[in-house]
Amino acid sequence: MINVEEIRKDFPFLERKIGDRTIVYFDNAASTQKPIQVIRAMEEFMKNHYANVHRGLHTLSQEASKLYEEAHEVVAKFINAYSWREVVFVSNTTEALNTIAYGWGLWNISEGDEIVVTIMDHHSNMLPWRLIAQLKKARVKYIDITNNGYLKYEQLDELITEKTKIVAFPIASNVLGTINDAKRIAKRAHEVGAIVVADGAQSVPHITTNVRELDVDFLAFSGHKMLGPTGIGVLWGREDILEEMKPFKVGGDTIKEVTLDSIVWHDLPWRFEAGTPNIIEGIGLAEAVKYLSKIGMENIRKHEEELVKYTLKRFQEFEGIIEYYGPRNPADKTGVIAFNIKGLNHHTVGAALDLFGIAVRTGMHCAHPLHYRLGLKGTVRASYYLYNTFEEVDYFIESLEKIILLKDKFSQQIPSHVCTGT
Amino acid sequence: MINVEEIRKDFPFLERKIGDRTIVYFDNAASTQKPIQVIRAMEEFMKNHYANVHRGLHTLSQEASKLYEEAHEVVAKFINAYSWREVVFVSNTTEALNTIAYGWGLWNISEGDEIVVTIMDHHSNMLPWRLIAQLKKARVKYIDITNNGYLKYEQLDELITEKTKIVAFPIASNVLGTINDAKRIAKRAHEVGAIVVADGAQSVPHITTNVRELDVDFLAFSGHKMLGPTGIGVLWGREDILEEMKPFKVGGDTIKEVTLDSIVWHDLPWRFEAGTPNIIEGIGLAEAVKYLSKIGMENIRKHEEELVKYTLKRFQEFEGIIEYYGPRNPADKTGVIAFNIKGLNHHTVGAALDLFGIAVRTGMHCAHPLHYRLGLKGTVRASYYLYNTFEEVDYFIESLEKIILLKDKFSQQIPSHVCTGT
Repeated sequence: MINVEEIRKDFPFLERKIGDRTIVYFDNAASTQKPIQVIRAMEEFMKNHYANVHRGLHTLSQEASKLYEEAHEVVAKFINAYSWREVVFVSNTTEALNTIAYGWGLWNISEGDEIVVTIMDHHSNMLPWRLIAQLKKARVKYIDITNNGYLKYEQLDELITEKTKIVAFPIASNVLGTINDAKRIAKRAHEVGAIVVADGAQSVPHITTNVRELDVDFLAFSGHKMLGPTGIGVLWGREDILEEMKPFKVGGDTIKEVTLDSIVWHDLPWRFEAGTPNIIEGIGLAEAVKYLSKIGMENIRKHEEELVKYTLKRFQEFEGIIEYYGPRNPADKTGVIAFNIKGLNHHTVGAALDLFGIAVRTGMHCAHPLHYRLGLKGTVRASYYLYNTFEEVDYFIESLEKIILLKDKFSQQIPSHVCTGT
Repeated sequence: MINVEEIRKDFPFLERKIGDRTIVYFDNAASTQKPIQVIRAMEEFMKNHYANVHRGLHTLSQEASKLYEEAHEVVAKFINAYSWREVVFVSNTTEALNTIAYGWGLWNISEGDEIVVTIMDHHSNMLPWRLIAQLKKARVKYIDITNNGYLKYEQLDELITEKTKIVAFPIASNVLGTINDAKRIAKRAHEVGAIVVADGAQSVPHITTNVRELDVDFLAFSGHKMLGPTGIGVLWGREDILEEMKPFKVGGDTIKEVTLDSIVWHDLPWRFEAGTPNIIEGIGLAEAVKYLSKIGMENIRKHEEELVKYTLKRFQEFEGIIEYYGPRNPADKTGVIAFNIKGLNHHTVGAALDLFGIAVRTGMHCAHPLHYRLGLKGTVRASYYLYNTFEEVDYFIESLEKIILLKDKFSQQIPSHVCTGT
């Protein structure tokens, strides 16, 4: 197992207090805290090595370019890509998915074509496909879920047909935590020649990722959900498909040669990194990946699985009062637990937990269709990471117990200022 | 005038040495160094206040949201926008321009329509329009320049017609430094009902920007060229046009409500900030803007103008040997000087200056059509900022003198590894 106490020392944020309470940060599916190693790497780069990349002949620019390219290599190795040329740095998962939708979809999808997504997809892997479908008069179809939050795999043969051009799904649900069977979906999609787009935002930070084994064509994930800074995400794609794909955003750095009549696009991955790239953020992400690798993704996964197992066991104390969603078996899900307390609005529970210094997320977590499918107006979501402890889970359970005891009092309070949309 | 010695103390990077020489950083048009205030603001935010924004009810998320929204306000004030809702945070200028091209162009430009750009545009304000023209069967036309690097304003009436839907141009050229007459171009464009898109990447960091006076409809600029971090740029747009414009990248944070059949887009500016935004970078940019405001944009402008004036005066010592491009009058240009030494490849000069510890940029600076128009294969570009000194210019001139003296020796050396494309 990992040494959580040692790990916690690397995260200055975890000493933060809310009022007189030390923060309990259970909002890791939204974003994660940064270890001092990442903060220092960015600081050191800005203080001593900062320059724009690619375009410079001078020593500084070459130094910065080398560090920036190495950052791609670090990420490539982390997901076992064949080459660092397959690793495109973008802003976040949403941009990665839009890059495929516009870059591939806009040029390859025609009227009558079909795109298959899942009802559990985050909006970021659903809306880009709906936009392209609207522009190209194509149709979007949805794979449903079981009541326990698994995909209905029996629908694969029926929904994925010769008309299907794209199959998009999350490796892990950001609400239910469900870890989907990527290989099974990819196998069916490839039988009909469809391109397979996997949203790895909730999986890459938490479970070992091996793109060679996953058998998908594209994988998208975000740096800020895996100890890295904001402003950096990754689009991994199969080299042959990336080579054929049109650039999405165009301009500086995407080209080798431009005349008024012609354009020669740049090599991979630069063709897809338009304008001055997120250099400082790329350096930060590489440091985050090194940190995760040092701890070991299998160890992180095991730790989160134990935390979930323990939480669900303690939830049994509140049978009929706390309802949670998604797989019952911790082995089938990531460290994400979405739940409700009967008779209390999810926002009310979130606000009450905040009074105890516990940060969770409440709402529909950018997955409205999933919540509507489950007949829910929202959930409270606790999500764990490598720095969370069993003591924190105990404190969380005790706090829930107090909230339940004071239920009648809390139920009068409707949070006044809530961005309910997302 | 500004106190450059005091300013330099804020920039840790400027103490950096190349070999045994203190760096002379003249590559500011590519990217600028970061003051300690910006580095510390990002560090402090990551250590003590980090959380995802918008979507959280908990104290941390509300703190982060407040800081992130305030960053928009700081930028809005800096460019005299009517409201912070008009300020959209993006990755960089290129993304801002692509956002308009896809978000407005893809839905409003039809076959036979025309888009007018200038021959001096950076690729990032040219290629997005060529892409949209290709997709929609529209035509792109180019405003030419005079031999002194000014736009040929007499072409405005001829090129901008009732067919014109978009007029795009740089407020200042990234090669020639030319400061264009934005109001004159906007006036003509608005006469025919066209949308005016200004690339402010090379102007906003260097001269006072007042969007109310400029009379353009959109303005794009980058944080990293104005003392801020990478990964953050700004799209300013007129609120009524932004309100009508389709979102570009779609997904998390762009919506209020999603069902399988409908989408209600979010308020401005969030509708255009898809996925987890560049939060840390937005905080950094706001700090950079505060720093620039404290020094005063008029003072910075005056300082750069004096540096250019002095450089061009000293260039007279090399008449017939050094050739420079763009306006002769420093009042008409920013702190950018593109030049060549006769008989020496621009890359050779750049590599030689690097030996003296002077960082300049060489190549075509993402403006190939402009270079071809001038009959050039590339230029050496020195570009100044608030922390540059007259002593550095003297050292630069002395170094050029030495390179010219050793011209025969240097002319044998063709730089072996050069990314000539950009």
